[in-house]
Amino acid sequence: MIVIGIDIGGTSIKGAAINELGKVLDRFSLPVIQGEDQEITVKKLADTINNFKKEHDYDEPYCGVGIGVPGIIDSDKGIVCSSANLRWENLPLKKMIEEQTGLATKITNDANAAALGETVFGSGKNYHSSVMITLGTGVGGGVVIDDKLVEGNEGKGFELGHMVIQLDGRPCGCGRKGCFEQYASASALIFDTKEAMKNNPSSRLHQIAEGLGIVDGRVSFIAAKEGDEAAIKVVENYVKYLSEGLLNYCNIFRPEVIILSGGIANEGKYLTDKIIKYFEEHHYGYYGNGMPKVDVVIASLGYDSGKIGAAALFLK
Amino acid sequence: MIVIGIDIGGTSIKGAAINELGKVLDRFSLPVIQGEDQEITVKKLADTINNFKKEHDYDEPYCGVGIGVPGIIDSDKGIVCSSANLRWENLPLKKMIEEQTGLATKITNDANAAALGETVFGSGKNYHSSVMITLGTGVGGGVVIDDKLVEGNEGKGFELGHMVIQLDGRPCGCGRKGCFEQYASASALIFDTKEAMKNNPSSRLHQIAEGLGIVDGRVSFIAAKEGDEAAIKVVENYVKYLSEGLLNYCNIFRPEVIILSGGIANEGKYLTDKIIKYFEEHHYGYYGNGMPKVDVVIASLGYDSGKIGAAALFLK
Repeated sequence: MIVIGIDIGGTSIKGAAINELGKVLDRFSLPVIQGEDQEITVKKLADTINNFKKEHDYDEPYCGVGIGVPGIIDSDKGIVCSSANLRWENLPLKKMIEEQTGLATKITNDANAAALGETVFGSGKNYHSSVMITLGTGVGGGVVIDDKLVEGNEGKGFELGHMVIQLDGRPCGCGRKGCFEQYASASALIFDTKEAMKNNPSSRLHQIAEGLGIVDGRVSFIAAKEGDEAAIKVVENYVKYLSEGLLNYCNIFRPEVIILSGGIANEGKYLTDKIIKYFEEHHYGYYGNGMPKVDVVIASLGYDSGKIGAAALFLK
Repeated sequence: MIVIGIDIGGTSIKGAAINELGKVLDRFSLPVIQGEDQEITVKKLADTINNFKKEHDYDEPYCGVGIGVPGIIDSDKGIVCSSANLRWENLPLKKMIEEQTGLATKITNDANAAALGETVFGSGKNYHSSVMITLGTGVGGGVVIDDKLVEGNEGKGFELGHMVIQLDGRPCGCGRKGCFEQYASASALIFDTKEAMKNNPSSRLHQIAEGLGIVDGRVSFIAAKEGDEAAIKVVENYVKYLSEGLLNYCNIFRPEVIILSGGIANEGKYLTDKIIKYFEEHHYGYYGNGMPKVDVVIASLGYDSGKIGAAALFLK
């Protein structure tokens, strides 16, 4: 059984033929042209799928197309309700792809797709219940319970970044104040790094940012590893914010594992060790008092997680 | 089909024969004697069930015993890991009741049982996905997705009261700081009411508390309805805390309905109207931007919700 897994992003659409083991066989991609009529983009995608199928004949049959889309998706009905990046609205994507390719199609939110991919075929493959949190420009995520993606009413996904952890805290793009995203995203870390640079002119943060040519999510981590006091404080604060949100999710979902992905997750074991240390010190929800322990791991599928996860909509 | 639904509390064990429609046919109860050996208490419960069965013959057969227990329950294994109120530890309750009554037995956390009961047979019966929040001494809750109770790893339930909504906020019994429970429980409301009384000697709060003979969760609500400024502020703050936590759960679970139970839920429509107004003003997660609307209702099974919910472990 072969599934075409597709990950739609703001600048390009990436796809791949994926087998039952979650292995990527061959890839394709096409650019997203800003301002293009949404029906035209979908037509181009369907044409690309049809050509790919003609050019790639496997021992097993193609059985479906799974698609992850950024935005608010009604996965039950197969409609992209709205996607700010793509400027898509009320697009019956499932029906259109089915009609134009003849293949059964399922769609979901891109963060959900990545969570499913990582749980079924990635770092979470030895677990059945997981919470995946993506630490990028924002904070997204997905939840898998008993190997099944949980998508909420109308299949409109979980917005794990928009949990208030600080009443009346930092204003969030969603309209609320104090959302987890405003403390645990790469953007938040960059904001805190810049503040620390302003307040600590002699900190190593300045040289490191200069060396990288940018103030990004790595700067404070690099400087902290070198022992810079200001950076250590930024990282400690970031770990606290992140861990408090994750402990909330431990109590809320009681998962077996938390999977971290996105830019900040590149800090790897250095980051997860700090989170686990924080959990151990503030352990309610993590372990003890009869509570099962929660593992914390880094996502392993990287670049392919969205495609593999979209395909997993058929493979599970 | 008849199921015996049992709700174990700190001072008494209440049970009932419940039919497939969730209707309570006949009830029984027995006291919990503090300090009694846990095996003795279970033996008494099993004897009571056996006697009840002998005395109550229905047209349909008895097919199981469902039990809700306060504390940390491994519902997969049927073990009460720990119950602070009952002082039970590592008690294989499911196995013991099955052996002593001959009836298949399922156990779960009492808050989970109530949530399942309300969703299947109570205020949530027209919905398939719900979050139930109990506003009592603490804040508890349960989550039903697609008509199924979600219980987390090892079936150890969700601790919906222990989500931090205020970093470094009020200390919580769980060891964390700023938990939802510390702002939205009846205890929190009473704390805030007492503070307001201290700071406002001329407030109506004093007369109302005197009239009731106690400062409880009703005092501020009664005074607020009479137009007392200090009380209005307490209630407004309480509604804000509660609503912010509930909006988190809207974003996290995307439920169709939020069901409120516990002492504070007796405020009924006066309370839900205020919550809905708050949701409308801070609506992300509630409605709009393509998000489905979330209804907010009061639990309707009252006294029987735990028993009916425990029985529903078999009826769904």
